[in-house]
Amino acid sequence: MIKTLEWTNQGIRLIDQTLLPTEETYVTCGTYQEVATAIRDMVVRGAPAIGVAAAMGIALGVRQSTAQDIAGLRTQFGQICRTMGETRPTAVNLFWAIRRMQQKFEEAAPQGVHTVKVVLVEEAQKMLVEDIAANQAMGRHGAALMPGSGGVLTHCNAGALATCGYGTALGVIRAAIAAGKNIHVFADETRPFLQGSRLTAWELMKDGIQTTLIADNMAGAMMRQGKIQAVVVGADRIAANGDVANKIGTYTVAVLAREHAIPFYVAAPWSTVDMNTPTGEKIPIEQRSHKEVTHLAGKQVAPDGVLVENPAFDVTPHQYIAAIITERGLAHPPFNESLQELALAGAGMVEAKR
Amino acid sequence: MIKTLEWTNQGIRLIDQTLLPTEETYVTCGTYQEVATAIRDMVVRGAPAIGVAAAMGIALGVRQSTAQDIAGLRTQFGQICRTMGETRPTAVNLFWAIRRMQQKFEEAAPQGVHTVKVVLVEEAQKMLVEDIAANQAMGRHGAALMPGSGGVLTHCNAGALATCGYGTALGVIRAAIAAGKNIHVFADETRPFLQGSRLTAWELMKDGIQTTLIADNMAGAMMRQGKIQAVVVGADRIAANGDVANKIGTYTVAVLAREHAIPFYVAAPWSTVDMNTPTGEKIPIEQRSHKEVTHLAGKQVAPDGVLVENPAFDVTPHQYIAAIITERGLAHPPFNESLQELALAGAGMVEAKR
Repeated sequence: MIKTLEWTNQGIRLIDQTLLPTEETYVTCGTYQEVATAIRDMVVRGAPAIGVAAAMGIALGVRQSTAQDIAGLRTQFGQICRTMGETRPTAVNLFWAIRRMQQKFEEAAPQGVHTVKVVLVEEAQKMLVEDIAANQAMGRHGAALMPGSGGVLTHCNAGALATCGYGTALGVIRAAIAAGKNIHVFADETRPFLQGSRLTAWELMKDGIQTTLIADNMAGAMMRQGKIQAVVVGADRIAANGDVANKIGTYTVAVLAREHAIPFYVAAPWSTVDMNTPTGEKIPIEQRSHKEVTHLAGKQVAPDGVLVENPAFDVTPHQYIAAIITERGLAHPPFNESLQELALAGAGMVEAKR
Repeated sequence: MIKTLEWTNQGIRLIDQTLLPTEETYVTCGTYQEVATAIRDMVVRGAPAIGVAAAMGIALGVRQSTAQDIAGLRTQFGQICRTMGETRPTAVNLFWAIRRMQQKFEEAAPQGVHTVKVVLVEEAQKMLVEDIAANQAMGRHGAALMPGSGGVLTHCNAGALATCGYGTALGVIRAAIAAGKNIHVFADETRPFLQGSRLTAWELMKDGIQTTLIADNMAGAMMRQGKIQAVVVGADRIAANGDVANKIGTYTVAVLAREHAIPFYVAAPWSTVDMNTPTGEKIPIEQRSHKEVTHLAGKQVAPDGVLVENPAFDVTPHQYIAAIITERGLAHPPFNESLQELALAGAGMVEAKR
C-alpha cells in the first residue's frame, strides 16, 4: 500500500507527488513551514490528504514550540494555523482539520503545554487512521453503484495519493473490483498538472487495475463510442445543496456524462462536505500560476505574454450528480435534504459514541 | 501575413509548425517524399494546408521526374499520389487535392510530358491562391454570425497556419474584428499536440487579437461563467449530412456549447465537404502515437506500459451545429438539404465559368 503521508520521528514523510510517475521519492518535512510549502507546491495534494497533512504540520509545529506556558503556545499555535490556512483556499478539509486541531487544543489546554503537545500529535495520527477507514466505508457504499462490467471514467486523482490510503473515487473502484466487478478505468490526464497521467495511472497500474489514459478532451468521444458506463470523481468541497467543487474539468465531464445518460458520482469523506457553504457559488476557487499552462516540463509552449486562465477547480452544480458517496452512506437528490440527513446521522453517531 | 507554405524554385517552403511558438523556422522540402514526411509529422497541418501541400508535393515530384513519355510519367505520378494519400487519413482535402491533380494530369497528358509538368505546377499554385480567397469569402459570410462583443472560443488551429493564409475559423474571427466587432478569443490549448497554445495563440497575438489561452478542460467553466458567446472551429471532413470530423475534443466543445445555449459554428472550404461520405460514422479516424500523450517535451509523464487512446479527431454530429460556413455561403440545418444546395450552386458556378 502506498504511504502518501506518515508521521515519523523526523517529521512528516511525504511521497513527492511532483516527481511521480518516473521517480518514487519520499521527502521529510522537518518543520511546519516545510509542510505548508509542500501543500502549496502540491508535493502533497488531494483534499483529504491536505487536511491530514495540515493537521500533522500543526502538531509538528506545536511539538517543536519552546513556549513555556499555554498563553505563549496559543500565540504560536495561532500563527501555525494561519500559515496552514493560507496554503490553498478551495479544499475545505484544510479548514476542517485546522478547526479540529483548534478544538483539541482548547480541550487539552487546562492540562498544560506538555499535554497539548501529546494530544495534538495523537489527534493528527488519529485523523490519518480515520481517513483510511472512511475511504474503505465509501468503497463499501459506492461499489454497488459501479457497473458489473465496463468502463469507469475518473478525472484528476482521487486515489490513495489524494488521501491517506485507498482513495475516495478510486477507493470505490477498488472496492467494486474486489467485489468481482470487471472494471476498466479511463483516466483523464487532467491538465495542467497531469494528476491523471502522473498519479492515477501510476497507482492503478501498481494495483494491476486495467487503465487507459486519455487526454481530457477525449472523454466526449469515449462516451459517444459507448466505452464509459459510469463516472466517479472526488471533491474538494461540497456545498450544502450538493454543488461540488473539484479539479478543473470536472464540470465538463459532468455535462458530457449527462448528455450520454451516464451516471456521474462524487466520492468524498464527510470532512469535504461544508454545510456552512449554501451553494457552489460561494466556494472560493484557487487561481494558479499561468506557467502551469504555458510551460510543459520546463519548455515554453505558448507565446510570450499570452493571457491565461488557470483556475484549479470548477463547480459542478448538483443537478448533474447522481449520488454523493460518503463514509456515512449515500446521498441522493435532492441533496439539500439528503446531506442534511447525513449531517444529523453523523451528529447522532457522535452523540452515541459519548 | 504568415506564409504557411509557398512554392519556391528550391522546393516547397513550409513554416515548421512543430517548432512554434518559440522558433519561427522555415524548412524547404526538396522532394515529394520530404513533403509527405512533413505532412505525416505535422510540420504542416490543418486540412486546407495539407491539401495544398500535397498538391505542391505532387507537382514537385512530377517536375523532377525523368520519365521520357506520358506512360512512364503516369506510373511515377501514381506512385507519388499513393505516397501522398498514405500520409494522413482523415482530412478529405488531401484526397480532393490528389483527385484534382489526377484530373489535370489527364487533361494535359495529350500535350506531352513538358505540358503536364507546367500544368501541374500551375495548378498547385492556383490552389494556394484559391484557398486564401475561399478563406476571405468565409470571413465575409461568417462575420455576421459572430457576436458584436464578447468571447469566441476556438479549438485547435483553424487559422492562417492551417491554410494558405487568413484561416477558416480564425478567418471568420479576423473578418468580424475587421468589421468592427469587439471579440476576445478563448483558445483551447488542444492536447495532445497543443495546436491551440503553440499555433492559434501565436498567430492571433501576431495580429494583435486579444487571446486567452485555456486548458481544454476549462471550456465548460468559462461557458458557465458567461465568458463565451460563440464557438467557431474548422473541420477535417464534413459528411453529406453535416456531421463534422475535426480535431479531437471538438465534440466535447459542441456538447458544452449546446448545454449553455451557445451557437457552435464550423468554418471550412468546400474542399472539406465530402458529399460521398453520407454520415460521420463513415469518416476514418487517424490514431496517432501514444507518445504524444505519455510524453511532454520529451519528458515521460505517464507510467510505463499504460494503455492510451490517441484518436487525432472526433466526429461532431450535425445536431450540435448551428451553421457551416463555406466560401459558397452558409449552410443551416437541415444540412443534408443545405449542403446539397451549395453543392449544386458550386456546380452551377463551375458551369457558368465555362
